[in-house]
Amino acid sequence: MDTTTIGDITFDDVVAAAGRLDGVAHRTPVLTSRRIDDLVGAEVLFKAEHLQRVGAFKFRGGYNALSQFDDDQRAAGVVTYSSGNHAQAIALSARLLDIPATIVMPTDAPASKVAATRGYGAEIVTYDRYTQDRAAIGADLAAERGLTLIPPYDHPHIIAGQGTVGKELFEEVGDLDALFVCLGGGGLLSGVALATRALSPGCRLVGVEPAAGNDGQQSFERGELVTIEPPRTLADGAATPSLGHHTFAIIRRDVDAIVTATDNELVDAMRLVASTMKQVVEPTGVLGLAAVLAPREELAGQRVGVVISGGNVDLDRYADLLAD
Amino acid sequence: MDTTTIGDITFDDVVAAAGRLDGVAHRTPVLTSRRIDDLVGAEVLFKAEHLQRVGAFKFRGGYNALSQFDDDQRAAGVVTYSSGNHAQAIALSARLLDIPATIVMPTDAPASKVAATRGYGAEIVTYDRYTQDRAAIGADLAAERGLTLIPPYDHPHIIAGQGTVGKELFEEVGDLDALFVCLGGGGLLSGVALATRALSPGCRLVGVEPAAGNDGQQSFERGELVTIEPPRTLADGAATPSLGHHTFAIIRRDVDAIVTATDNELVDAMRLVASTMKQVVEPTGVLGLAAVLAPREELAGQRVGVVISGGNVDLDRYADLLAD
Repeated sequence: MDTTTIGDITFDDVVAAAGRLDGVAHRTPVLTSRRIDDLVGAEVLFKAEHLQRVGAFKFRGGYNALSQFDDDQRAAGVVTYSSGNHAQAIALSARLLDIPATIVMPTDAPASKVAATRGYGAEIVTYDRYTQDRAAIGADLAAERGLTLIPPYDHPHIIAGQGTVGKELFEEVGDLDALFVCLGGGGLLSGVALATRALSPGCRLVGVEPAAGNDGQQSFERGELVTIEPPRTLADGAATPSLGHHTFAIIRRDVDAIVTATDNELVDAMRLVASTMKQVVEPTGVLGLAAVLAPREELAGQRVGVVISGGNVDLDRYADLLAD
Repeated sequence: MDTTTIGDITFDDVVAAAGRLDGVAHRTPVLTSRRIDDLVGAEVLFKAEHLQRVGAFKFRGGYNALSQFDDDQRAAGVVTYSSGNHAQAIALSARLLDIPATIVMPTDAPASKVAATRGYGAEIVTYDRYTQDRAAIGADLAAERGLTLIPPYDHPHIIAGQGTVGKELFEEVGDLDALFVCLGGGGLLSGVALATRALSPGCRLVGVEPAAGNDGQQSFERGELVTIEPPRTLADGAATPSLGHHTFAIIRRDVDAIVTATDNELVDAMRLVASTMKQVVEPTGVLGLAAVLAPREELAGQRVGVVISGGNVDLDRYADLLAD
């Protein structure tokens, strides 16, 4: 597949998405912690997308995509596949826009995410994450039922919507020296990259993947899209086997580095966020912070942004992780 | 003891305290949750004092008191007794103002609170909550060492400082139909009462105590100060045996009702706050919410304020409670 479509997704699309989301999505706060600043030796500014509607940034992309459906698409409905937060994002967006929604979810998705998705009125179809191809299931459903498929990350409208995270952050805090963003399929990172290059062009932009699933890092270093086995990691929201074609093209062009965090580092970061910032964040959500907490001398004295991507975690599981 | 001093603590003192705290204490945000609004059938506005410095409203009163020390008092130092959050508040305020601090803490105080207090540079003296009188220990230390005793709630400067919680809330959200405030010794409730009567005089003001330690409710109903055995409750921040003379006088005059919440209700409220609002709150901190979640038909369609008092809870203990 070619990547020439990269030119079709620009910061203008992020600005247009921000207009569609105005008054619908939350303009999430930027949180800070003196203790974390002391630990890192830098000024750390957290964009708190766990406080977004559905508890994750995914609402931005989902709503941006569905709000551009034409009448026929609205009447027929939307289908997507997701390990969780994108599912809720599409389900809520569909309910707000009065569009029928069908969601393909893995059988081992967190119960809280399944329940929330069903609660928004979506129909749920399950599949086995380790043996079945969710994209194929989604495509089949789209073809059979005339639904419009909105994938979780590799779609221009999704990327543009997620980019509003970066737009809001830079509008609120101004230039940053560095910005750390969680990386699964790359919708958030590529969208934020468009905003970064437009609003704080000198900012060092770093994607952070789970160490067990570093397909993005491999792709970035080899210069070609690498696909891995579905990784097993606490960071279920970033357990993607590969970047997308659109997201990879933007990431190659606009991102400075991709680093990784281990599950143990994620748990330490979750505990730190709970004890110092009093925030409940899901494992995927602290990828950026975990990377910043790894000794990084280059951050000394800098202004560093960190995107917290989401806070949807089963409480029993969360309790287990805090008690580790 | 007489209660004529009530006339000496007015909303003017709260306004003066706000001036001293400006730029030092956080102006904490007001949080909302659509799901909690749906559950309660009202618009619920949470004043988020768990995001205050030291993780609790107590910083306001502590700093307001210490910033009024004269030179001799500053040189000699401050002493106080506290189950935790007031200890941290005095310790941090003392460090900011360069005043030596001695803190009398119960041997069973949460480890996180002891560690944080010591981390601010205070000297810690421990006592047994169930056999020793902390006020007497504090008074002895004050006399022996020439220290100024700043008790955790029954002091005009403490009450005025805590009142800034209410002042900020009403300034941000305007009139409320009802406001629920956690009640231990009554520093927060009496201070907020002064702000309520000045800024939203028609607001129904409700104090919420742990059911196991309802001395305040008994005092309120009998019209005289009732002292009980030190209660055993999850709400360690409200495990006080009685109100203070100053706080009771204001509460009698300005508060409409005192209700209680059980430990089980506190745990349910903590879980709800974690899952919907993504906030880590200590058991004492959800007293107000627990009361609002009890079926209260009178709240239907109203604008209801709830003060979240603090978020300092050992993570292991917090994990145990979430997993219940």
